[in-house]
Amino acid sequence: MITREQCAALDAADPLAHCRARFNLPADTIYLDGNSLGAMPANVPARMKTALEDEWAHGLIRSWNDADWYPAPQRTGNKIAKLIGAGPGEVIVADSTSVNLFKVLVAATRMRAERRVILAERTNFPTDVYIASSVAQMTGCELRCVDPEEVMSSIDDSVAVVSLTHVNYKSGKRYDMEAVTRKAHEAGALIVWDLCHSAGAMPVHLNGCEADFAVGCGYKYLNGGPGAPAYVFVAKRHLADLNQPLTGWHGHAKPFEFTHDYAPHAGIDRMLTGTAPQLGVIALEAALEAFEGVDLEVLRAKSVALGNLMIELADQHLAGLGCTLASPRDAGQRGSQVSLAHAEGYAVMQALIARKVIGDFRAPDILRFGFAPLYVRYADIWDTVSALKDILETCAWDNEAFHARKSVT
Amino acid sequence: MITREQCAALDAADPLAHCRARFNLPADTIYLDGNSLGAMPANVPARMKTALEDEWAHGLIRSWNDADWYPAPQRTGNKIAKLIGAGPGEVIVADSTSVNLFKVLVAATRMRAERRVILAERTNFPTDVYIASSVAQMTGCELRCVDPEEVMSSIDDSVAVVSLTHVNYKSGKRYDMEAVTRKAHEAGALIVWDLCHSAGAMPVHLNGCEADFAVGCGYKYLNGGPGAPAYVFVAKRHLADLNQPLTGWHGHAKPFEFTHDYAPHAGIDRMLTGTAPQLGVIALEAALEAFEGVDLEVLRAKSVALGNLMIELADQHLAGLGCTLASPRDAGQRGSQVSLAHAEGYAVMQALIARKVIGDFRAPDILRFGFAPLYVRYADIWDTVSALKDILETCAWDNEAFHARKSVT
Repeated sequence: MITREQCAALDAADPLAHCRARFNLPADTIYLDGNSLGAMPANVPARMKTALEDEWAHGLIRSWNDADWYPAPQRTGNKIAKLIGAGPGEVIVADSTSVNLFKVLVAATRMRAERRVILAERTNFPTDVYIASSVAQMTGCELRCVDPEEVMSSIDDSVAVVSLTHVNYKSGKRYDMEAVTRKAHEAGALIVWDLCHSAGAMPVHLNGCEADFAVGCGYKYLNGGPGAPAYVFVAKRHLADLNQPLTGWHGHAKPFEFTHDYAPHAGIDRMLTGTAPQLGVIALEAALEAFEGVDLEVLRAKSVALGNLMIELADQHLAGLGCTLASPRDAGQRGSQVSLAHAEGYAVMQALIARKVIGDFRAPDILRFGFAPLYVRYADIWDTVSALKDILETCAWDNEAFHARKSVT
Repeated sequence: MITREQCAALDAADPLAHCRARFNLPADTIYLDGNSLGAMPANVPARMKTALEDEWAHGLIRSWNDADWYPAPQRTGNKIAKLIGAGPGEVIVADSTSVNLFKVLVAATRMRAERRVILAERTNFPTDVYIASSVAQMTGCELRCVDPEEVMSSIDDSVAVVSLTHVNYKSGKRYDMEAVTRKAHEAGALIVWDLCHSAGAMPVHLNGCEADFAVGCGYKYLNGGPGAPAYVFVAKRHLADLNQPLTGWHGHAKPFEFTHDYAPHAGIDRMLTGTAPQLGVIALEAALEAFEGVDLEVLRAKSVALGNLMIELADQHLAGLGCTLASPRDAGQRGSQVSLAHAEGYAVMQALIARKVIGDFRAPDILRFGFAPLYVRYADIWDTVSALKDILETCAWDNEAFHARKSVT
């Protein structure tokens, strides 16, 4: 049996242990929900105070230039680029993941105008499918939704664009980005990767895989804060031909000439629409400093180790208590989370949260535990399984149950 | 001649004078650019500190429920509704003005599917025209762009939707919302009003005019901060039939059931797309407290008085100095700004800013002065014209000229 002392020893030897101090975390809480809302990097409040009191209140409109607000979406995009295997000028911060997905899906269908199929995956996060459905409706395409195991065999020469999420939000199952991208390209299709559940928890090799487009959110493993702005990646080779439909003034080649006709910016700025949500961009940019000096392979190794530990401990302590593993056992197929299914998952998660062990519930029966390797400790995993064991053995979830079925994003 | 003492007396008698203390403004600066970026309400930093340190850092994911983050876009929308003549449940905070305009224009063309013309106005803020052009392309409509004086005569039974901005960003010219809306309805068309340059500076009567849709930004007269989230209004009578194309999960009837098919929320929530930019929403909601107890008719009366004063002083002091009035002289046709044209407008504005009198420049030759009645003083207007007179008389704009032509939003 793995002991808590062994877990504490792993923490003591953890090459990323020092990164936890970069976050402001409540001392009495175990936080395994960084894949829903990342913890707050400790430098954010001071940066925000400067942004508010010096830049906004005192600098006023001048701060768009003097405080370098204006290039913040590009600058922050370049910082994200380093986490996802993209080059400078290929990533920009803008809008939400859903809005960015709309932009790239429409743009992709325009680049493959002779094809009429958008291939998506049934178990993807719903917003991706909703947006793909709307894009199909507006562009006269067919949305073909298939099960995960059918994706590879469904990529054929009718497909204009394949839209997938790298790591599934519910199961934590991870696609082989390189293999799927190659298959799409062999069939003459383009591919869009949603990185919401992978960026910041593992290396992503967009250019290494020759991916075409990607989108992702700023508020999970990037720790940008609630509703942080999202980002969009366009491979440099596509930029010149890319016509996205949300043609707001900030995507214009010369937005401050206020010309009547739209002419897209030559570079990644063409993915912008309206004025950047500057307070959010500032928080996100500051938050990304938490990754300074972090080797993404080391980050991934810790993420895998945390997940393996969770599964081993679950095997040891939760057998026969109604929980089943809902994530791949093979770390090579897993993202940075472990999901367990339990028929009373909602009440069980509420009981855990009452004990200050915070994971997430996903309908109908998934207990989801996300591992942000910058701040999650091995001992946290031990304590989580221990709390879960106690709750399940004593049916505490029934006693402690929260009857109001409130929603948590 | 109007004296500075007379202006100071107007300030002393100003029923809104106490509102200036609700803002954190640099003491040595005259700020007439609140129609580009509103000044910072003094309560925002404390509210943001709580949001960061208590709600995000300590509350973590629980704050979506426990700190009432989740209903913030609706709650803040209802506060904006009171400023624009809308009812509860008709306004929601989301995305940017451009993105919201895309949503309502597509939705409107779907509600008038038998008509194929989007009527827009050539001198509108460019983003509105760019978005309308993209919507026309995607929906197979024709974008008909006309000069302002042709708008009324161009509304006929071919028009699906009329897209106008209430107050023009450059000239400050204001449409008669009631008359244009009535004309559109008589022709069987729908109408979208962009309120960027009117909301927060004057009463707007969306329901009084029976307007169909409206959009607007949070960072001008609403003082929500740089890139503050925007809002969208949908008249209650249209909500049930409205199908907007950016069908993200937060617009779903039950977003947390994660169902495969999109089913729009019954109410204004259907205008949402992705997760709300929560830090921005929080700042905007706090900022709106600056309007507490403010009678919008009194606000408008002050706005008109400030504009009239500016024009009178310009007549008295700037004649023969190369400036011409570029806004309507008749306050009934004006928003809350006065624009002056000068051939060297850019350099002149830079010289003014160097003297800490902040207005805005709009290419090619417009000096734009916006009057946020909550914090602009009559004496500010006197000091502005005095500084402008001195700069023009001494050609100081030539000496003080800033050669780098940087852009300011």
